[in-house]
Amino acid sequence: MTTRIVELRQGILKKNDELAHVLRDRYTQAGVLVLNLVSSPGSGKTAFLERTLRELTTTGAKAAALVGDLETDNDAKRLAASGAPVRQINTHGTCHLDAEMIGKHLDEWTARPLAGLDYLFIENVGNLVCPSSYDLGERIRVALLSVTEGEDKPLKYPTMFNSADAAVITKLDLAEPCEFQRDEALKNIREIRPGIEIFETSSKTGAGFDGWLAYLKQERAKR
Amino acid sequence: MTTRIVELRQGILKKNDELAHVLRDRYTQAGVLVLNLVSSPGSGKTAFLERTLRELTTTGAKAAALVGDLETDNDAKRLAASGAPVRQINTHGTCHLDAEMIGKHLDEWTARPLAGLDYLFIENVGNLVCPSSYDLGERIRVALLSVTEGEDKPLKYPTMFNSADAAVITKLDLAEPCEFQRDEALKNIREIRPGIEIFETSSKTGAGFDGWLAYLKQERAKR
Repeated sequence: MTTRIVELRQGILKKNDELAHVLRDRYTQAGVLVLNLVSSPGSGKTAFLERTLRELTTTGAKAAALVGDLETDNDAKRLAASGAPVRQINTHGTCHLDAEMIGKHLDEWTARPLAGLDYLFIENVGNLVCPSSYDLGERIRVALLSVTEGEDKPLKYPTMFNSADAAVITKLDLAEPCEFQRDEALKNIREIRPGIEIFETSSKTGAGFDGWLAYLKQERAKR
Repeated sequence: MTTRIVELRQGILKKNDELAHVLRDRYTQAGVLVLNLVSSPGSGKTAFLERTLRELTTTGAKAAALVGDLETDNDAKRLAASGAPVRQINTHGTCHLDAEMIGKHLDEWTARPLAGLDYLFIENVGNLVCPSSYDLGERIRVALLSVTEGEDKPLKYPTMFNSADAAVITKLDLAEPCEFQRDEALKNIREIRPGIEIFETSSKTGAGFDGWLAYLKQERAKR
């Protein structure tokens, strides 16, 4: 059975890569910077995205979000408060988003969902393992790690951090009660992904958002 | 391709259920209470298990642990400090433990790994999705949720909490800085799994461990 599983898995990933390639062309043609946010459940992806959307909207940028969850539309409701267009994707038990789901939801959303957008954020299902294998056509994959999770997570989930283009440390306001070892965390992230951009943030206090927003603007200008 | 995936997945889970059935008989014959600990990455499974092993050993009970991770043997090293026998299972990228891995590691561990044991704890890979489908022959599945993750997690990952026999809230010492909404968390857990046993704990202060250890002793006596 193992050989069949490996073959089928390769087939699934190959098909996903092909669909992701089509999506990537679509994003490029529309001039939208697309980011895929991945992390453990409860790392603060939604709070981070909430503040990012709010701050971007304030500066006049056009941003939207696709939000993946196994069940519920809680996150889409929270994000919609920012005023940005948001669409929930319920995976109904599937542990990751894939390129087919993204394409389908983009098609169903509006006639021209990417038209006029500067940024599209995809909030993946909370899972530090499976989403790492599925390209969504994004230009930037962002791995989030909260100070409450322990500094060893990049070493224990290397594929996710190795495939990321940027890392965001979240919940910095809790660093002290969590006895967060900053140097250790940075060292572990860089051990898995040398040269990666790292942002140290708190969605509550706004710490680190200046640097994060400047990075977004700079990456957006590269299109 | 979807039909083939569904069929193959059913085949894998059926095979796993058969192997889990064999393991369950093996545990019962040896008179060992086996628990499967599941949670997000960074929920504090290892710290919780560390204290549980230490406290059990102090009372003269015989406990051991199998620890699953994608990579590293950090957790096994941490747990071994308790004095209990511990064995690391590296899944090398697989997002969950399965019954075959458990059987294989039990066989390789020692000639009679379960002999004389009162408790065997299996610490699963940190993942709130995939491990829910894989029976490891355990009698008690324990879902852990830290106060840092947000009270909505049971609703967003219903399969995991629905398949659990007990829920453990961890990191209670961080409840205040995290503005943890206790009533909301308890309500959400019970909505998904009515009547479930819930333990509110801190592995740092020891809060809630009296009740947890009493529960273990009581479940052990049921064999």
